[in-house]
Amino acid sequence: MTERTIAIGALELDGGQMLPAVEQRVAIYGDPACGQIVLALHALTGDHRVAAWWPGLVGEGALFDPRSCCVIGINMLGSCYGSTPVREYITIADIVRAQRRALEVLGIERIDVAIGGSMGGMQALQWAHDTPDRIGRAVAIGAPDHTGALAIALNSIQRDSLALDPVAGLGLARKIAMLSYKSDALLSRRHGRRRDRNGRRCFDIEGFLDLQATRIVERIDAATYATLTHAMDSFDLRDTDWPESTPPLTFVGISSDTLFPAREIRDAAERIACRGIDVRYIEFQSEHGHDAFLAEDATLAELLARNAFAGVT
Amino acid sequence: MTERTIAIGALELDGGQMLPAVEQRVAIYGDPACGQIVLALHALTGDHRVAAWWPGLVGEGALFDPRSCCVIGINMLGSCYGSTPVREYITIADIVRAQRRALEVLGIERIDVAIGGSMGGMQALQWAHDTPDRIGRAVAIGAPDHTGALAIALNSIQRDSLALDPVAGLGLARKIAMLSYKSDALLSRRHGRRRDRNGRRCFDIEGFLDLQATRIVERIDAATYATLTHAMDSFDLRDTDWPESTPPLTFVGISSDTLFPAREIRDAAERIACRGIDVRYIEFQSEHGHDAFLAEDATLAELLARNAFAGVT
Repeated sequence: MTERTIAIGALELDGGQMLPAVEQRVAIYGDPACGQIVLALHALTGDHRVAAWWPGLVGEGALFDPRSCCVIGINMLGSCYGSTPVREYITIADIVRAQRRALEVLGIERIDVAIGGSMGGMQALQWAHDTPDRIGRAVAIGAPDHTGALAIALNSIQRDSLALDPVAGLGLARKIAMLSYKSDALLSRRHGRRRDRNGRRCFDIEGFLDLQATRIVERIDAATYATLTHAMDSFDLRDTDWPESTPPLTFVGISSDTLFPAREIRDAAERIACRGIDVRYIEFQSEHGHDAFLAEDATLAELLARNAFAGVT
Repeated sequence: MTERTIAIGALELDGGQMLPAVEQRVAIYGDPACGQIVLALHALTGDHRVAAWWPGLVGEGALFDPRSCCVIGINMLGSCYGSTPVREYITIADIVRAQRRALEVLGIERIDVAIGGSMGGMQALQWAHDTPDRIGRAVAIGAPDHTGALAIALNSIQRDSLALDPVAGLGLARKIAMLSYKSDALLSRRHGRRRDRNGRRCFDIEGFLDLQATRIVERIDAATYATLTHAMDSFDLRDTDWPESTPPLTFVGISSDTLFPAREIRDAAERIACRGIDVRYIEFQSEHGHDAFLAEDATLAELLARNAFAGVT
């Protein structure tokens, strides 16, 4: 894997503002000349080092093996892992436009697969929508065609929390988010009413959440968190025209997802299929909730190998 | 309706502390000598004026009509609507013990029905468990036999929010709670991606949540909120012995409830039925989520009339 920071020059945003000098941090796994380019897109608090957080999908022996294809991870515009920080409101389309420009600098005009979970899946869909002729297939896991009221509300109250305190508030925002990522059944089984093992809190689940709060503060800052949750809110491909040349789309709904319920993802797939696009819907049976795309990545990879990529890669 | 503040004297708590001089604020609808006593128990932010927030269940022409029975509402120990504020950790059993003492002062030794939704349902079950010979039937709507990991976690992060700021943090706590009370489907239908009608926020759902935050600060204080959420956390009748004389119990699960899912309430009903107790489980079909016991109280009353109270009252 090689990491690079790519200067893409000025970037005009959907909101009309111009960012003067934008950089994109990328990780490249395998040889870009191999003829098969996979763009692996990260979620809210992820980064471009895809193999680190998605080992079931990217790595030797994984679904996308850098020995036979080239996987590119790009840190989202506005994120704090090496791409240009942004304080303006940006959209998923802005994020995708910056990615496309970075790939052009790398000499890559076309990608075979864009794939991501959650906000990464939104980017994959936006890629297919905005530049249908430059992409072979988009795969979105735990991501519908628009951000709905519940997700908007959860993002909004997380930003409210940041406004109370940029550090403790970020920790609380992460706790709110975690409870939307995990299923009730998983929390019951893992934590139930058990006492906190460290004795600092009453219950084990509270100690778990405290740990998540501590960790997020080391990984991301409040400004990035606000920018990227606003970008997620902006995502809306529900009532849009999908180009005739839209490549095949694969939607994966997670059975226990309460943030982006499987039913809504299936609805999205059906809406787009009605427009004559080649759409496949797969349901991922998991107890892990929205988080399943990370927590059960090996199982997800098998599911994709059997369905979305059977005979494709 | 008459309201009274009842001095019940000193009260020993489950935690061992003694509260020196406890008062309970009650609302009495109808004549206590009528021979049929209904105890209607309120949820986290409710109060003793039951007819105001549960008109489908309490009032002339409602399920419990003060012309033919006597309905008593009691403000929970630790709540700020006239009962004694408490800064100690209290349990649902403490709250119920204080209620029982208040009824004794009123000369009421036995109640026919204890009924409540959410935390009110927990109190109804605790009544049946702790004093089975003094109660004819307990009805719990949207309340299982124990507070599980998700509810504990949501309560905990709401208290984290209070710790950041007793006013703005209480507002945020209420927003977190509201998102656990309403179903995704309801939020989608009511708010979707519509813009905020007042233009202060981006989205309508954000304006709705701001309004809820403003209202809660006028209704309750942070200390009450912390005390009562801790009491809710304490609730655990899952692994307890249920007395042989336990009166009939009715559990109502709400189909779209994500805070206390219907499946868990059905499981609770089955667990207790296995111990030889007379338990009925009813499923309330509603799109409103946990909030349905308040939002669709007339429908709930019909459901109860057809099932739990058919031939009973």
